[in-house]
Amino acid sequence: MLKEILVRMSNPQSAIRNPPSLVRPLVRHLHAYVPGEQPKIRGLIKLNTNENPYPPSPKVLAAVKQAVDGRLRLYPNPTADRLRAKLAELHGCAAENLIVGNGADELLEMAVRAFVEPALPEAATPTASPGTAAFSRTQPPKSVVQYFTPSYSLYPVLADMHGAVRNAVPLKPDFGLPSVAELRRGRQWDFRAALTFVTTPNAPSGRGYSTSELETLCRAQRGVVVLDETYVDFAHEHALALALKHPHVIVSRTFSKAYSLCFQRVGYCVGHPALIDALHKIRDSYNVNGLGQVAAVATLDDLGYYRRNFRRVIRTRERVAAELTGLGFKVCPCQTNFLFVRPPRFPAEQWLGLLRERKVLVRWFASPEVRDRLRVSIGTDAEMDALLKAIRAVLAGR
Amino acid sequence: MLKEILVRMSNPQSAIRNPPSLVRPLVRHLHAYVPGEQPKIRGLIKLNTNENPYPPSPKVLAAVKQAVDGRLRLYPNPTADRLRAKLAELHGCAAENLIVGNGADELLEMAVRAFVEPALPEAATPTASPGTAAFSRTQPPKSVVQYFTPSYSLYPVLADMHGAVRNAVPLKPDFGLPSVAELRRGRQWDFRAALTFVTTPNAPSGRGYSTSELETLCRAQRGVVVLDETYVDFAHEHALALALKHPHVIVSRTFSKAYSLCFQRVGYCVGHPALIDALHKIRDSYNVNGLGQVAAVATLDDLGYYRRNFRRVIRTRERVAAELTGLGFKVCPCQTNFLFVRPPRFPAEQWLGLLRERKVLVRWFASPEVRDRLRVSIGTDAEMDALLKAIRAVLAGR
Repeated sequence: MLKEILVRMSNPQSAIRNPPSLVRPLVRHLHAYVPGEQPKIRGLIKLNTNENPYPPSPKVLAAVKQAVDGRLRLYPNPTADRLRAKLAELHGCAAENLIVGNGADELLEMAVRAFVEPALPEAATPTASPGTAAFSRTQPPKSVVQYFTPSYSLYPVLADMHGAVRNAVPLKPDFGLPSVAELRRGRQWDFRAALTFVTTPNAPSGRGYSTSELETLCRAQRGVVVLDETYVDFAHEHALALALKHPHVIVSRTFSKAYSLCFQRVGYCVGHPALIDALHKIRDSYNVNGLGQVAAVATLDDLGYYRRNFRRVIRTRERVAAELTGLGFKVCPCQTNFLFVRPPRFPAEQWLGLLRERKVLVRWFASPEVRDRLRVSIGTDAEMDALLKAIRAVLAGR
Repeated sequence: MLKEILVRMSNPQSAIRNPPSLVRPLVRHLHAYVPGEQPKIRGLIKLNTNENPYPPSPKVLAAVKQAVDGRLRLYPNPTADRLRAKLAELHGCAAENLIVGNGADELLEMAVRAFVEPALPEAATPTASPGTAAFSRTQPPKSVVQYFTPSYSLYPVLADMHGAVRNAVPLKPDFGLPSVAELRRGRQWDFRAALTFVTTPNAPSGRGYSTSELETLCRAQRGVVVLDETYVDFAHEHALALALKHPHVIVSRTFSKAYSLCFQRVGYCVGHPALIDALHKIRDSYNVNGLGQVAAVATLDDLGYYRRNFRRVIRTRERVAAELTGLGFKVCPCQTNFLFVRPPRFPAEQWLGLLRERKVLVRWFASPEVRDRLRVSIGTDAEMDALLKAIRAVLAGR
């Protein structure tokens, strides 16, 4: 009431409108996803958002530069046809199995909107917010967004944003996938969930999963399963075949990290045409910017360059993992372009600050199951040497 | 049942899953928005999607080219801070009044998700689909997305996609805004609608509205009003001040058309911080690609170039309007970069084909209230001369 009076006083033109009340309660109560920092501090070594330390191929840069002309005035191809044709060739599928997004995040968000019913009207009231047990018990599985913890911290935000019910189930203590039998025994996992996200290899742990264990899990699910393969180019194997074999499985990929194109926002999904078509229906008409399409097409013409980079990143990762182990860090076995480590001596959060003071930025997550760890992106060898130097200085009390 | 058996046969691995059944009924029944064609036919004169015929400024092209380097590997600024700072300066507001989108369409879609409650569960069942009168009678105004017809044909799609209730109310026969008194008398308009979209100047008619009539309408609304100013740079006046004066009014703008950057996907909204903050909460973390941000910032540094283009487009528009009138076309008075005309002799749909045969592509809409018209984007003088030549040929039976 006081707030209302104040609003009225400050804006007599619109006497009875309290702007926050115009926002859906669900959105008002939302805890938005917090992306890793993107600071522009000179000399800072940025190992916090898993960007590739190597630039895009010179051919990609040349192709993008060449496209920067009067054509920017025209709309881009709405369905990224050239890119989808090339991806279809690469993956041995049809263009109808593919949709391109403004980064993979856009596609994950669209998957929630396409395959999950909002659990309204309760979700719209502040007394029963999504994700709480009391709430989810009353909701049918068609409203459930399911995922393992820890994994990509965007999934719960996407569920909340949609008014869906979250079902977060722990991975094993070593970040392995529980078996179907274990999931059945645990009783928390929902085999009928409308949508299940699996980050594979996992983030933030870096743990890789075999296609056969993923397939066993997929077969047990009745709803849609999205295998989020953001980091798969650094892994031993990928599970793309599952998206072409099982009509309820979608694989999502991105050009951001492995292909050094974060700036350009291009991701894609592979799956059954019926599911892909549903995503297309709710897609913004021109969701993928034109220069991003040009860059991604040129990337696929120069895969050798990127595969050399993957090997470089993996070599650096293995060397740094060994060195960190020698310094007393517990390092998770990993198949990604980052390491997930438990630091010695000080709490992980304190290490975050200590390294930042030494101009090295890594990532720390506050959630209980991983708050004793740091996630460290693999940079160039020189950047990783600077990290190791900073760590030695901390350990030596310098 | 037969379908299910066929699915089972073709994919014994996933016997009982029928992929379409994994898609929400609401999405399955959705009629997706159909954007104007983007054909790549040599020599075709493209006057169908209101793109600016003039290229971006040379300074903008230079700035984008210069940004194409190893930095593409990094994430763009998640909140487009430099661009928002420049826009804040331009519009005399704070960065908190601004959000940048992947084109304005993304922001319109987010406005529906932020301010409108889905009208579930009925919307999720095929027996009562959104937009039908029987359906809307039972729904509270917090689920209503309201707009005039004709206007941007994306609005009903956004409403359907969200499971909201559409309320489409006709403009006056000359495409003018009905007065508040007329709307009250008509009883169809909902002054409590959660969200009202007003395209101003209107598309596809091109009709401009005065700020004072828009303000009178805004004052009568209890919910959020989005003034969609996609074409406002070609108009006599703009209503941006209303977004800074009234806490429930948002103005949306785009760099696509007036600023020759369709390819790059950059739009923005101006409004009260509480509404803008709600949009930020449901925004993809990195929704605006980095080169798009660079291009938009450089655009704001060279506004003189664009203002000269606006005058050129308007001069061409007035000349072509006069010539078409002389040829027997009924031309609506217009404040945009396109003309809305009723052609003589043949039905409009037939004209679409006749002009296409002569390599000129214009736009025709099938909806009943405008199916006797064509929308013709303003191209260069040479392109418009080619259009006039093609029209004369049709009229002469050549």
